[in-house]
Amino acid sequence: MSGWKAMGDRTGPMAFLFSQSHRGNLMAFSVFFGEGQREKIKERGNERMAISKKVKNALNGASWVRRMFEEGEELKQLYGAENVFDFSLGNPNLEPPPSLKKALKALADQPILGMHRYMPNSGYSETRKAIAEYLAEESGLPFEEKHVVMTVGAAGGLNVILKAILDEGDQVIIPSPYFMEFKFYIDNSGGETRLVETNDDFSLNLKEIEKTIGTRTKAILINSPNNPTGAVYDQKSLEKLGELLKRKSRELRKTLYLITDEAYRRIVYAGTELPISFLYYPHSIRVTSHSKDLSLPGERIGYIAVSPQCEEVDELISALVFANRTLGFVNAPALMQRLVAPLQRNSVKIRDYEEKRDLLYNSLRAFGYQVVKPQGAFYIFPKAPIEDDVAFVKDLQSKRILTVPGTGFGKPGHFRISYAVENKVIEGALPGFKEVAEKYGMVGK
Amino acid sequence: MSGWKAMGDRTGPMAFLFSQSHRGNLMAFSVFFGEGQREKIKERGNERMAISKKVKNALNGASWVRRMFEEGEELKQLYGAENVFDFSLGNPNLEPPPSLKKALKALADQPILGMHRYMPNSGYSETRKAIAEYLAEESGLPFEEKHVVMTVGAAGGLNVILKAILDEGDQVIIPSPYFMEFKFYIDNSGGETRLVETNDDFSLNLKEIEKTIGTRTKAILINSPNNPTGAVYDQKSLEKLGELLKRKSRELRKTLYLITDEAYRRIVYAGTELPISFLYYPHSIRVTSHSKDLSLPGERIGYIAVSPQCEEVDELISALVFANRTLGFVNAPALMQRLVAPLQRNSVKIRDYEEKRDLLYNSLRAFGYQVVKPQGAFYIFPKAPIEDDVAFVKDLQSKRILTVPGTGFGKPGHFRISYAVENKVIEGALPGFKEVAEKYGMVGK
Repeated sequence: MSGWKAMGDRTGPMAFLFSQSHRGNLMAFSVFFGEGQREKIKERGNERMAISKKVKNALNGASWVRRMFEEGEELKQLYGAENVFDFSLGNPNLEPPPSLKKALKALADQPILGMHRYMPNSGYSETRKAIAEYLAEESGLPFEEKHVVMTVGAAGGLNVILKAILDEGDQVIIPSPYFMEFKFYIDNSGGETRLVETNDDFSLNLKEIEKTIGTRTKAILINSPNNPTGAVYDQKSLEKLGELLKRKSRELRKTLYLITDEAYRRIVYAGTELPISFLYYPHSIRVTSHSKDLSLPGERIGYIAVSPQCEEVDELISALVFANRTLGFVNAPALMQRLVAPLQRNSVKIRDYEEKRDLLYNSLRAFGYQVVKPQGAFYIFPKAPIEDDVAFVKDLQSKRILTVPGTGFGKPGHFRISYAVENKVIEGALPGFKEVAEKYGMVGK
Repeated sequence: MSGWKAMGDRTGPMAFLFSQSHRGNLMAFSVFFGEGQREKIKERGNERMAISKKVKNALNGASWVRRMFEEGEELKQLYGAENVFDFSLGNPNLEPPPSLKKALKALADQPILGMHRYMPNSGYSETRKAIAEYLAEESGLPFEEKHVVMTVGAAGGLNVILKAILDEGDQVIIPSPYFMEFKFYIDNSGGETRLVETNDDFSLNLKEIEKTIGTRTKAILINSPNNPTGAVYDQKSLEKLGELLKRKSRELRKTLYLITDEAYRRIVYAGTELPISFLYYPHSIRVTSHSKDLSLPGERIGYIAVSPQCEEVDELISALVFANRTLGFVNAPALMQRLVAPLQRNSVKIRDYEEKRDLLYNSLRAFGYQVVKPQGAFYIFPKAPIEDDVAFVKDLQSKRILTVPGTGFGKPGHFRISYAVENKVIEGALPGFKEVAEKYGMVGK
């Protein structure tokens, strides 16, 4: 089985195109990216249209970019995959910690009767208890088993939350640049996305958020540490956001939710701390996964945690469990639920990612790139020296460097580098980054 | 970890209530069951309503039945779980075959680098190839890797299919009695359910199906072997259904899909064969899982197979992969994809289920129950001797026998017995079934 291709090893163009990670996210970009440049949809009349029109439109939006990334694949075929520096996907290169491998071996050696059967839709009681204990310790709040719902990764969890709370036309506010899959998730439950620009350093712009909250607002969805910027929203901004939401909830006489996508919560670098949103707003719902902290993205194991201070918390949890079931997830994978339960305080070596961040950040700065220093996750989001980020990404491509244009995250004029890759990939790409910088006369600027 | 509760061992009433299986399905029943008997929803004005109205309505529908099943749990507490005969859930009691356990141990002993990473959203190439080979061998059709999309179980697969093909208001026809979760799945993608009664022996009523197909019809969804009836649609009826769909597609000048939910496809008893729908209609999409054949329901591993004869098959597959990603499944669990790949021809011992079927069917007949002999799955769906199936199910409850009223499957006047249980549960329940039959003077009828 050792010949099996994981994402880093994919070869065919189709595998590339339809392979993306929740976070690494190539496709979200592809799908939205063609906007305005879409190939004209060949209208053959609704009657013969075999797939959903909505989906067809989304797929058509991808065709322009498809060619571009096929070029990337061609590069790999021309020069060999090892000579192409692929920073396009967020597919963690680190292996799960030894504790995870040990737990898997123990379970395989001594299988437990019934361990692959259905369990309650919310997950095993033992796993939820272990997570609740961890959350209670972290926050000082009275988390119990019932506040935790095990999910098929954070992407599954987000869909579950949105289904549970949204009615047709409800709005969800998202700070931008943002992970573009969010738009699809919100649309899946009939909601509408409202984007709010962040500040220049990618911190929350609370004034803009305040202006955007209205009678149709149901929730604000923040992602910290952030994909694509690596920003971590600090305690001060969470405090202020909490105050704003409390005030607006009173004014609008409705419950506004704060949804925190904390898929990268453990990947936070020295000198930075991820504030605990539960402490600043009672109607907080956290969604996270073990894709990054335990490097298990392909296994689809995550959870939702609802603040014990939420009004009508039992009803909300019932709604989440209902959504988990009826969206077809049914439950999070059984085996993984067992494995992650005792590993709530474990993680891969964050320092490894930090070293990559330092190498890349310092080098890009030295080459003259304008870039905000990421405080977490494994992305960096520099400014392109020209408006046209797609053209700039093509320049990098000519140096066999694959990145994603900022347009794919709602922020043209930037580009995203995912550095969850081997150090040698970063080292190999530095000369190319420098040459392109020189081309635009950036060095020393 | 041996104290972990699987479904059969659940104890608390809430665990019972919110624990159900895709197939075993208690909640689908609960949710719909209260229709007309719903507790009045306490309207506090939309403004303060914290969860989705749609979900709230569904949850409120469950409250009536919640009490009833809590009574079942009380029975277990009163008499001990071992003295309560629980036929309410479809949670396979058989362990996975030894080949599965061996494969898991081999992988845990010698982990493969990157084996928990993301892979293409459609799944590992190797797994899809193995399944395509199996399908090609079975059908004689040119199945290739690209025709297979790995999914988070059959429930996940169904949601993916419906998302890929439905636009707002499109209709999906379902023969009834039926698995009630289907209604939610269809609604998730904006579709509408059209029910069509089956014949008295639960075979397809093609005339009724023909009458129901109209301009808004997009697909017919059949489930064979069937939950809740155990019926298997024979070759003749599949042939006729294929002809009907071809004719209607021409008349309506649109593509109609045949979706076959074959979650129980391997559980078919001596003398019966499951026809291969791909042979009778080109626009066939099969969805199935390894929940039953390999007894892995909690692991959420299944797949979609699209007929190679489908028009515009590549576009349909792109739509499926897109839906798999954006609904938040992202990909089927990585580890399980590896394990099931070489086990496409393996399964649990079907004969074990057949023995249970025989014991139950013969006994119920002898007691005077009117019942159609199931040809597959692990359900039997006898007629209740009175119109009020809920009252009858309560009669059985008084003998410490837990079943599900037919109302929960769109067919009042019947009740469902799930016999994926230990033989001793069946044996223990027989006197109770007999006593209730005697109460209604059924014996010897």
